[in-house]
Formats: sequence, C-alpha cells, structure tokens
Amino acid sequence: MPTPGARLVKYHATINDVKYTYGVAAPVARLRSGDVLETNTLDAFGNVLKGPGDRLDMVKGDNPLTGPFYIEGAEPGDTLAIKFLDLEVDGKQGVGAFAPGFGALNSSTYTPMLGEPLPERIWYYPVDHAGNAATFQAHDSNFTVQIPLHPFFGCIGVAPAGGEARSSIVPAENGGNMDAPEASVGNTLYLPVNVTGAMLYMGDGHAAMGDGEVDGTAIEAPLRARLQVEVIKGRKIDWPRFENDNSIMAVGITRPLDDALRVAFTQLIAWMHQDYGLSELDAYELLSKVATIHLDEMVDPNYVIVASIHKKYLPPRKK
Amino acid sequence: MPTPGARLVKYHATINDVKYTYGVAAPVARLRSGDVLETNTLDAFGNVLKGPGDRLDMVKGDNPLTGPFYIEGAEPGDTLAIKFLDLEVDGKQGVGAFAPGFGALNSSTYTPMLGEPLPERIWYYPVDHAGNAATFQAHDSNFTVQIPLHPFFGCIGVAPAGGEARSSIVPAENGGNMDAPEASVGNTLYLPVNVTGAMLYMGDGHAAMGDGEVDGTAIEAPLRARLQVEVIKGRKIDWPRFENDNSIMAVGITRPLDDALRVAFTQLIAWMHQDYGLSELDAYELLSKVATIHLDEMVDPNYVIVASIHKKYLPPRKK
Amino acid sequence: MPTPGARLVKYHATINDVKYTYGVAAPVARLRSGDVLETNTLDAFGNVLKGPGDRLDMVKGDNPLTGPFYIEGAEPGDTLAIKFLDLEVDGKQGVGAFAPGFGALNSSTYTPMLGEPLPERIWYYPVDHAGNAATFQAHDSNFTVQIPLHPFFGCIGVAPAGGEARSSIVPAENGGNMDAPEASVGNTLYLPVNVTGAMLYMGDGHAAMGDGEVDGTAIEAPLRARLQVEVIKGRKIDWPRFENDNSIMAVGITRPLDDALRVAFTQLIAWMHQDYGLSELDAYELLSKVATIHLDEMVDPNYVIVASIHKKYLPPRKK
Amino acid sequence: MPTPGARLVKYHATINDVKYTYGVAAPVARLRSGDVLETNTLDAFGNVLKGPGDRLDMVKGDNPLTGPFYIEGAEPGDTLAIKFLDLEVDGKQGVGAFAPGFGALNSSTYTPMLGEPLPERIWYYPVDHAGNAATFQAHDSNFTVQIPLHPFFGCIGVAPAGGEARSSIVPAENGGNMDAPEASVGNTLYLPVNVTGAMLYMGDGHAAMGDGEVDGTAIEAPLRARLQVEVIKGRKIDWPRFENDNSIMAVGITRPLDDALRVAFTQLIAWMHQDYGLSELDAYELLSKVATIHLDEMVDPNYVIVASIHKKYLPPRKK
Repeated sequence: MPTPGARLVKYHATINDVKYTYGVAAPVARLRSGDVLETNTLDAFGNVLKGPGDRLDMVKGDNPLTGPFYIEGAEPGDTLAIKFLDLEVDGKQGVGAFAPGFGALNSSTYTPMLGEPLPERIWYYPVDHAGNAATFQAHDSNFTVQIPLHPFFGCIGVAPAGGEARSSIVPAENGGNMDAPEASVGNTLYLPVNVTGAMLYMGDGHAAMGDGEVDGTAIEAPLRARLQVEVIKGRKIDWPRFENDNSIMAVGITRPLDDALRVAFTQLIAWMHQDYGLSELDAYELLSKVATIHLDEMVDPNYVIVASIHKKYLPPRKK
Repeated sequence: MPTPGARLVKYHATINDVKYTYGVAAPVARLRSGDVLETNTLDAFGNVLKGPGDRLDMVKGDNPLTGPFYIEGAEPGDTLAIKFLDLEVDGKQGVGAFAPGFGALNSSTYTPMLGEPLPERIWYYPVDHAGNAATFQAHDSNFTVQIPLHPFFGCIGVAPAGGEARSSIVPAENGGNMDAPEASVGNTLYLPVNVTGAMLYMGDGHAAMGDGEVDGTAIEAPLRARLQVEVIKGRKIDWPRFENDNSIMAVGITRPLDDALRVAFTQLIAWMHQDYGLSELDAYELLSKVATIHLDEMVDPNYVIVASIHKKYLPPRKK
Repeated sequence: MPTPGARLVKYHATINDVKYTYGVAAPVARLRSGDVLETNTLDAFGNVLKGPGDRLDMVKGDNPLTGPFYIEGAEPGDTLAIKFLDLEVDGKQGVGAFAPGFGALNSSTYTPMLGEPLPERIWYYPVDHAGNAATFQAHDSNFTVQIPLHPFFGCIGVAPAGGEARSSIVPAENGGNMDAPEASVGNTLYLPVNVTGAMLYMGDGHAAMGDGEVDGTAIEAPLRARLQVEVIKGRKIDWPRFENDNSIMAVGITRPLDDALRVAFTQLIAWMHQDYGLSELDAYELLSKVATIHLDEMVDPNYVIVASIHKKYLPPRKK
Repeated sequence: MPTPGARLVKYHATINDVKYTYGVAAPVARLRSGDVLETNTLDAFGNVLKGPGDRLDMVKGDNPLTGPFYIEGAEPGDTLAIKFLDLEVDGKQGVGAFAPGFGALNSSTYTPMLGEPLPERIWYYPVDHAGNAATFQAHDSNFTVQIPLHPFFGCIGVAPAGGEARSSIVPAENGGNMDAPEASVGNTLYLPVNVTGAMLYMGDGHAAMGDGEVDGTAIEAPLRARLQVEVIKGRKIDWPRFENDNSIMAVGITRPLDDALRVAFTQLIAWMHQDYGLSELDAYELLSKVATIHLDEMVDPNYVIVASIHKKYLPPRKK
C-alpha cells in the first residue's frame, strides 16, 4: 500500500550486476522515501546449481546481492524502514546443501573440529506454486514431504558504519545475512543508516527455513520482491528491528547465542522504555513473563536471535 | 485418560516434606506404571512471599520439591514417561522477583560482573481463575496488563546418574529445573531412569512464563497437579524428551546456548533416525528446513533449548 | 614443613576403597588442622590400562578418588587450606588416551557433533624417575620425545554445598576435577568448607599436562602424596583459590570459557580489594596491565581458568 | 638483521595520515620483500589524552593506524612475514582507560547488561625509559607500583579477503586488533595475503599489557618501530601465526573463547602435521601433554587465543 506520490521503481538484477559485500558502491538505482521497489534476487549460489551432478565448487560466490539502492535523503543517524509488500519464489526449484565450513552440528570455519568432515550434499526442492509448497526428497530413503512456502530475504542490509565493508555471508549491526524469516510480507524492517544514501542490498532468498538454519541452508531460491522504503529522519537505532501490527521485535547479532540474546533483549527493553514509557526494570520483569524468542540462525559468522513482545502487553505508544 | 487398572494415588505436600535436591531419598509415595498421581507443589519461594514488605531473605530455600515418588519397576536403562493430565494454579496470587545472582541481563553467579548489582524487586500477580489470567502491575508507572495462564512445572526430574545429587535450581540430564513450558497439559515428558525406582520430584510451578525467563522468574505459583506415570522398559535415553500429538521434542541442557542447541539437535536427529528411519544427513537437512526451536531459559546454572519437529514432516514411526 | 604438634597420618588407598563422587560419605581417616597426610591415588582409569590391547571399556569408573578425609573442626563457612608438600609418580608408566565424549576438538558429551567420532586411542608414557621425564611415543611415525614431569592432582575437592554430590569428573565450586597444574608442590589450595568435616577427596594424578588438556587426558598416573591441611575458621570463600610465595590465584569454573574467566577475575578482584585494600576499579585496571591467565582445561563438564597476579604488584596485605 | 640488499624505508606517521580501517587504500609507502621499515604509531587514542581533565570524548577515533604499506610482489595466496626488530615507547607517558562499551567484566557492546555502567576512568602511567618501566598510580588509594615495559603492537594486519574492510578495533583472519604481546621483538608474525600488495597497517602500541586485557586497555603508548617484511610466495595460511627460535604459535580469533581455542589448536595441529610430519591424532595427544595457551584478550569484538608448542617437542621440520 504505497503512500500517495510514491513512485514504483523497477530494477532487474543479473549475475553481472551482483555484489558480494555490503559497503559503499555505485548505486544500481535511486529511491525516494516512500517509493516502492520491484526487483529480483538470485539464489545464494548465484542460480548455478540446477540438478544432480552439479557441485558446490561451481558456485562463484555465496549470497550475490542485488543493489546497492541509494536512498535519497538518508543520512547517518537516520533509520531506514523497509516494508515487505510482496515476495515470491522466482523459479520452479529450491536448493538445500550441506557445505563445508557451515553448519551448527559439524566442523565449521569458526567452530573447527578434527577428523573427517561431513560430505558435501545437495538436495533439490521442486516448488509447487499453486500448492504453495516445496517438496523435500530424502537421499537415503524413499521419503518425501511437502513444506509450505514462506519466502523471505536471508540477506538484507545497508553499508556498515566506520568505513567497514562486510561480506554477504555476515550478519551484523547493518543487517546483512540475518537469515531472518521476519524479513517477509507483513513486516517492516528498520535498519540504521550509516552512510549518506544508506546503500540498501538484498539477496539470499529463502522459500522456507527451519529455526536455526542448522545445516547452513534454507530452501534457497531466487525471489521476486516488492518493497517500500521510508527514511525516518533523526531516529537512531544501533541494531536492526522488525515490527508488524502485532509485535515489536529487536534483533541481536553476535556470537555466542548467549550474547546475541543479551543484545536482542537490552535493545527490546530500550525500545519499550523509550517508546512505551516502561522503566527498565518493569520491562525486564514483563519480558520474563511474556517475551517471545526466535532463534533465526546459528550457522553464519554471527548468530541471530530475535526477541519480541506482543503489543497487547504494552502501554500505548508515546510517539 | 488413565490406563485400565491404574490407581489414583494422592499425596499432599507441605513445607515440612519438601526436598531441595534431586537424589536418592526416602520416597513419600510409591507409584506403579500407569498410576495417576494427584499432588501439589509449593511455589519457588516456599510460599513465603505474600505481599509488600516481604523480602527474598525470608525464603528458606529455592524450588522446594514435592517427592520423591518411587516408581515400581523402574530400573537404570529404562525411560520414565510422565503425562501431564491437569495443572492448576493453587492460590490467588503469583510472584515475580528480580533476585541477586539470577538473570540473563545482569551480573549473576556464573556470569559475574563488576559494579552495582540491580536492586532486589518483587512483583505480585493477582490470579483471576475465571478469566484464566494473571495481572502484571508495573512498579514505576501506572500500567497493568493481563497475562493468560499457562501452568507448568519449572522443576520436574529424577535422581541423577553416577551417584550424583543435584540442587533443585539445576537442570541437567535428569531433567530438574528445566523451566520448560512444555511440562504442561497435553504433553508427555520422557526422563532417563538412573536409579532403581527412578525417584521422581516436581515443583517450581509457573502460572506463565516468557521465552528465556530472562530476569530469572516466571509468575511463580503453587500448583495442583494430576500426572500419569509409565515405565518404558529397556528404552534408554540420554536427555529429557517431550512429545505430544503433533510433535517430538528433544531437550538440550548445558551452557552456553550454542552447546545446548547442539545437544538438542543431535538428540532430535538420533530420535528421527532410530524411530523414523531417516538417515542422519537427511534428518539434518530436513530440520534445517522445518525445525522449531524453543529457548526455554538462559538463567539457571544450565540453559535449556528444545528442538522439535512436527510429525507431519516425519515418515511413519517404525516402532 | 609441618607445624609443631602436627601429626603425620598415613592412609593407603586401593581400588576397593575409592569413591566416584564428592559428597558426604564415611571417612577413611580423620585429620586435625595442621596434620600432614601421606597417601596415594590410583590413576584416572583405576590403574587398569597396562599396555597394548587394553581398552577403555575395561575401566570401571573414571577418576577414582581417595577419601573422604574428615577434617576436625571444619564447619560450613570456614576455608580449608591444603599445602602440597610432596607429589611423586607412583609407578613406571603414565597413560594418555583419546576417549569418546571427551576432547576440545571433537564431538563430546556437551558439544556433540554429527558424523564419525574420532577413534579411541591409548598412548603409554614410560616414566624415567631419575631423569624426571616421561616419553611420548608417536603412533603414526617414529617420533619420540621426553616430557619433564610435573606431578599434580587433577582431582582435589570437598563435599559440595546444598546437599549436592558431584561426579569425580566434574569441577565446580567445591574444587573437584579442576585439572589444575597449580595443585602441586609449592602451592596452597583453598577450598570452601560446605559440610561439617569438609570431606576431602583427591585423585586423577597427572605426571604432566599441557594447557587446556585439549584431548581430554594428561599423562595419567598413580601418585604418592604428602599434604598438610589447615582449617581457617570464619573465612568464607565462594570458589577455590591457590597461593604461593609469589602469587595469588583465583579459579573460575564454568562454561563457556568466557564465563569461567569472569568468575576468576571477579574473584581475584574481590581478593585484592578485601585483603590488599585496592578499590574494585583500581584492581580491574591494574589486572588489565599485569594479570596472568592460565587456561587449565576445556574438556571437563565445566572449564577451568586461573587468574593470578604477582604479589610484587600488590600493596602490603592488610591481614 | 636485514637480509643483504634489503633497503631501509622510513615513514613518519601523523594524525593527518592515519586510517581507521584495514582495507585497500592509497599506500603511504612501498616495501620490497626483505626491506626494513622504520616508522612510528600514535597511541590508541590518537595521542590526545595528556593528563587530568582530558576525557574520552576528545578522542576522534580508536586505534589510528599507520599505513597502508604496499608490499611488492605480495599476491593473494602468499604469506607475509613481519619480523619485529625493534620497538620502543615514543614518549614519556602511557595511558590506561576504562571506557564505555569495552571490558570483560562489565556491560559492553556485545555483552550488554542492564543497570548503571561503570564510570569512565583514565589512568596515566609515567614511563621511565632508563628503568624500562611504567608506573601504575591507584586512584582510590596511595598505592603505586612499577610495571616492566614490554612494547608491542596491539594492531597489526593486512587488508581482509573478499573485498571486506574492517574497523581498526576488530581482530580477525587478517590480524588487526589482536592485542597480542607476541607482536614484539624476537618474534615473526605471519599473515595471509588477501589482496595484491597485502596492504600492511599497524598501530595501537602497548607499553605493557596483562593477559586478557580485561578492562579494555593496555598501557597505551605511541611507539617507534623497526620491522622487516618478507613475502613467502605460494604459502597459504588461513589465520595469523607467530614464530620465534623456541616456539610455533597459532592464533585463533573469534567469539566465544571456546571457539577461539578451537581455531588456534586446529591450526596448530595442521601446522605440526604439514611442516613436522606428525599425524593429526598424535599431534592432538602431544599438545594435550605439552601445549601452551596464551589468552591475549577477551575485550575486542573478537577474542584472541594463541596456542603454541615448544620446538623441542617437535620432530625436525620437513621443509
């Protein structure tokens, strides 16, 4: 539901235009606050895995990103709001893979172990658009089962602060590879603006994902997307946040999970204090009674936990 | 729905009979496989906090336990199944507290920090049985809000293996202070039997709790309970599990959360392999697409994560 | 250097008398404050691994403990000081092993991973008493090398607080399986007294060990020991401490290492404040400039870090 | 001891030339393999804290870096060796500070807690060059004590892989803010080359530091340095390494410490296997008996652990 006067901006991404870092780069398009963007993203493997016999070493780079989109008027200290209007799987098949270096239950880059690594494996998921489902087919037995689609962006983020550029596999304060199912239709994502123009990127579409993304992949798929951006001037946030009609959600992104949880909850408490007027201790106590925790992923270089509270448990918003 | 021939055993607990460790002790009653137990538990503070002016130093011991119940025929290597038939708040008020040494966002016993600790605070929650809700009353503003009741046992466990006895504030392989909302009506809990008679204990009733129990307490309340016990002979499990009509759920209990997650998921994968015939790698991949993670608590000496999968995603059970 | 009037108490342990938990049990001997104890301990495998062909499943229980020794006059709230006067390897051979469930770089009980576990392996270390060294002999090449002996108790502890009993493989507030090379000649260990008589146990002798004990074992060996015990009345500590002529050392014991470090340093700062008069913040700053950290082990159910400061950096002791 | 033909390259850094990220930037000078560099670095606060009354908000940016130095012939897949020939404190005073957001025992950016933060504090350390010591002066009592100087670079690193640019406060695979006392005279540091020319930076000089750098600062000081660089063609490493006449040392850099330890040890074992011919399991076992662990810091966005083995315990080097 675009705001009056908002433009529709279309941009089509191909493997020739994608980026592999969040940072300052030549924009592929410019958006004004209120504009709706229609665009597409390649899957996490650059759309190269097509079927049996394909191997992960055919992949040129993980998580190719569409963007950056320059947001007019966005300055450091502002907040960028991204409303997910529509997301659809852009193809007939999704891909899951068990890839060296990733995974919560095996030797990985940052939790390395000795011994033989698990073998590389690729699963293909036929997508039934009419039935809104993808099909898991077991490798080692005859079992198949349908999984409902819930398309979302595994990657969505802006240029980091302090002149950093971060890989498209990293989630951090600037968003990025959060693998957050919250980045989907019905929700609004808030990101801190760190550079003039914000520099918005997205990619790593997921047709569906389990909590934790434990083996390192969702049902990876190209997506078509319609998003609306808005610049909230003079509102500064330190970490990404989500919101929908029902809930406010704070995102904590670091390692280990213990600390990701602490980031998410201290941010949520700050939000409840600033916008809803509860004292820190009252908010702490109330969350201990009614909070919801979503553990998005424990497989990327940083881990992601979302702490949220239903708005029915909150006082009226102050502003 | 007791099995035919099952007896109803009633036991009423008072502050004079409670225990503060899970271990081998003189049983308060004996149950046969299939029996239904009707009993009650005191709240986590031994029912001593009644209203304004009461202080945490009035509490004699945390998490007083009702039990132990000796389960006839239970031997090491068996599994004890506990079905939650009915749970009700046994009183007109619940208690929340912010207590020194506990809490995920403040200096605690095992994550100590320097500087001034947060001050002790106690919140009282009037319970409306007809409305099935308790009321949060903010200390520092005029806000009040109703929270739906979801009664469950914060503590339920058996004597540990290896001759250990564990404090009633500790969750571990023997269950214990799991603060698992899964320990409630509609679910069955499986615990490993480590000693002859199993020695079942329960307590620390919660009228409701948020994910993570972040400040260290739920809405603490005495409970009345009806449970059915069953001994599954020759079935050995290493960690607690839950099950209901919809889902199988594996519990991981350790620190940090990263490792609790690894325990929960490796156990769930073992379960899917053993009982449902999926290979380890297929189960890993499938969970990465459809798993649910519930982060029960990050405030006790060990942390608790429940990993589950809906049965609709599983092949038919082999046995 | 026993105090005047101190008795020499001798106790010889065999596999028939050992214990596998720290807790309250019938004492094997009684000691008065100031007494010197001469005793011995079996190795971590109960002395059953003798040479090629022996397997870990021959081991009846890990870390058989000599004790308990009842310390006259020790009451909860006191501190027990144990001075290591003499420690010697009691035999001609030490044993190292790579055992399922243990190890920092492989799937273990509390950091479980999928896939094939590393294979069980046993290394034997001939001990040269004259040369004060043991010899490592590689399995997969012709390499051998001598390792200087540094005998110490992997296990030394007292009955826990709160009616708990803990396995001999667990280190915790009561000491236990700390795998601390600090538990050796020249040092004094302080343990909190939790029960009347303290109930002192020791075992799991190590002929030498690397920092971190990364594969799960040191050069495991039976020991002969001479120790002096002293009861410090009315001095309460929360965690084990070590001291020698040069340094004060605080022990942090939990998971993950991050939190073990926090326990060790907050305890050391409390010690510097109480006994040496430095403010908390001055102590924090000074340690940031001159502290020493010893990472004892990351393989037991809890991890052990020792934080210490050289006494030359401290003001004169107040008391 | 420069190699024959090596040039001496001098570069003087000022606050006008410093950088705040590790990445690709216009080089300040070019070095050939074998060249000796004479340069200087500002302290972590840009040399702005001079005495009582100065505040941390006067600091423009943390860890200003001297560089980048372009290393001729260095290509991705090579290793850059940096030999520390001489390091001296460049001034009469060092600075320690307790700064918001940093510190292992207080609320910090990635381990945030509720409640009042510790207050900002600055300590000044007069440097006695003749006596090779700096003096700690307590704020809250009359105590002063001398600390021997051990000058080293808190920051030394190259441009990261994958097009990333990282803040000067971050340690990672590219080195950076490792706060490693190993980065000092007598040692050689090996860094992976990720971009053509390597792009070497250094800064954050420390006059002395305790293990763990627990409150977030060492004795921060400007340094004068003489370093020799060498390009090792076709030798690829994944993480930084140190070496001296006595030891080989592998660096693990991530959070939590548990995983930093795993990185360090798996890297050290790979090194022992590749260059010294020990099998993985023999190396694992040997390290469990003789490894040394140095916990460099637990206060930066990633933590740093160095695992090392004395060369006397190793077979002859294969190459």
